[in-house]
Amino acid sequence: MSATLLVTPAELDSAELEISGEAYHHLFHAARAAVGDAVRMVDGRGRARCGEIVRVERRCAAVRLGAAAPSLEPVLWLELLVAAPRPSRASWLVEKGTELGVRAFRFLDCERSARPLDSAALDRLGRVARAAVEQCGRSWLPEVTGGHRLETVLARHPHAAVFLLDPQAAAAAGELGSGAARSLVVVGPEGGFTAGEHELAVRLGARPIRLLASVLRVETAALAAAAWALLQAESGASPGPLGTPIAR
Amino acid sequence: MSATLLVTPAELDSAELEISGEAYHHLFHAARAAVGDAVRMVDGRGRARCGEIVRVERRCAAVRLGAAAPSLEPVLWLELLVAAPRPSRASWLVEKGTELGVRAFRFLDCERSARPLDSAALDRLGRVARAAVEQCGRSWLPEVTGGHRLETVLARHPHAAVFLLDPQAAAAAGELGSGAARSLVVVGPEGGFTAGEHELAVRLGARPIRLLASVLRVETAALAAAAWALLQAESGASPGPLGTPIAR
Repeated sequence: MSATLLVTPAELDSAELEISGEAYHHLFHAARAAVGDAVRMVDGRGRARCGEIVRVERRCAAVRLGAAAPSLEPVLWLELLVAAPRPSRASWLVEKGTELGVRAFRFLDCERSARPLDSAALDRLGRVARAAVEQCGRSWLPEVTGGHRLETVLARHPHAAVFLLDPQAAAAAGELGSGAARSLVVVGPEGGFTAGEHELAVRLGARPIRLLASVLRVETAALAAAAWALLQAESGASPGPLGTPIAR
Repeated sequence: MSATLLVTPAELDSAELEISGEAYHHLFHAARAAVGDAVRMVDGRGRARCGEIVRVERRCAAVRLGAAAPSLEPVLWLELLVAAPRPSRASWLVEKGTELGVRAFRFLDCERSARPLDSAALDRLGRVARAAVEQCGRSWLPEVTGGHRLETVLARHPHAAVFLLDPQAAAAAGELGSGAARSLVVVGPEGGFTAGEHELAVRLGARPIRLLASVLRVETAALAAAAWALLQAESGASPGPLGTPIAR
């Protein structure tokens, strides 16, 4: 697998691209690339192209862009809406969830959640997502946003299948990945949503489902639900090559 | 959910138990328990009993043990055999995998894996597993062992379903959780198994399956596969109460 470089959509449309700064460091120090090596170029919006390193200088290099490449995106568009955990735990959720193919991480302020993530923490999480995209080769850069309220996000997602993790739910996780092309999974704080929040979420269309019998931390529950939903969608997908982008 | 305390099988069989040291600290400082509070007592071998705090002194306390409690163990007995990652990454795999219900973490030495985990690192990982058991309330303490070789572990697991994560596999993850009551998932290092190791694993009964199209770190792949297999088994499980221990 060649190294992956995340560029802007405009840059992805060029014929040749100059690489400097952090991207240069990433390619030529961390990944030890050389002239002639292939580089996967992605635009963070789902498009990818094959690149080839054609020149390396002391502080910059040039990549020639070629044919379109597979997106490596999962077939399910999955977003997570998660009660803000501590920054270190949020960081690993973003790293791992990005690798698995989560499309957006939205952190929720709710009655029992920990301190909201401040803008410096959200910036750091955004950098974690960028690094994870280049690590795993996918082509979509997940949005990482915070300060959300249940009612606002749920009202904005009227057409997606919305699931609420709830240890008391009658429905098992089996129903999570089934069918919808876009899903939103809502994960409450470790003390649980209040009765009012739970009722609000259900009224706005969220369907309660349970995962396992043990008590999961917020970020573990969110990642397990993501893995389950994404892999379930993949298994139900048509048998074409996994990397083929699907029309939406 | 009451606090959980991990004790020995012999201690779990007593009528009343004295709590001191770390367990005392955990209950009365971290979890702020008090006389009359319920405590879930587990023996790390799959049994659980209800406990009640009957006395609290300055450095010790007493818990009276009552009826058997649900095990909170998943229906699938899942073990992971994973090319040793860096200790910090191994640590989160053990924490998260323990919460989800993995039964054993075995770290593998293979041709392309990082430095083997030394005994101090394995001890630390064992403590991570203990803490995660008390955090999540399950009743089985996963074994954490290292220095394994593919052929030794696979030869010892002749009756389990054995799966090998392989991005090039023809079979999708869909086949992972199906059927077996005991599964072993084998995860190679980030550079992949060598052709010789792969061939050996397949000869010893491992079935190659692929997860997602993106490139996953060792610990992400292992955790995603675990979540998938455990939740898939849960969904196919008979509709009895999730927490009921199953006979094996």
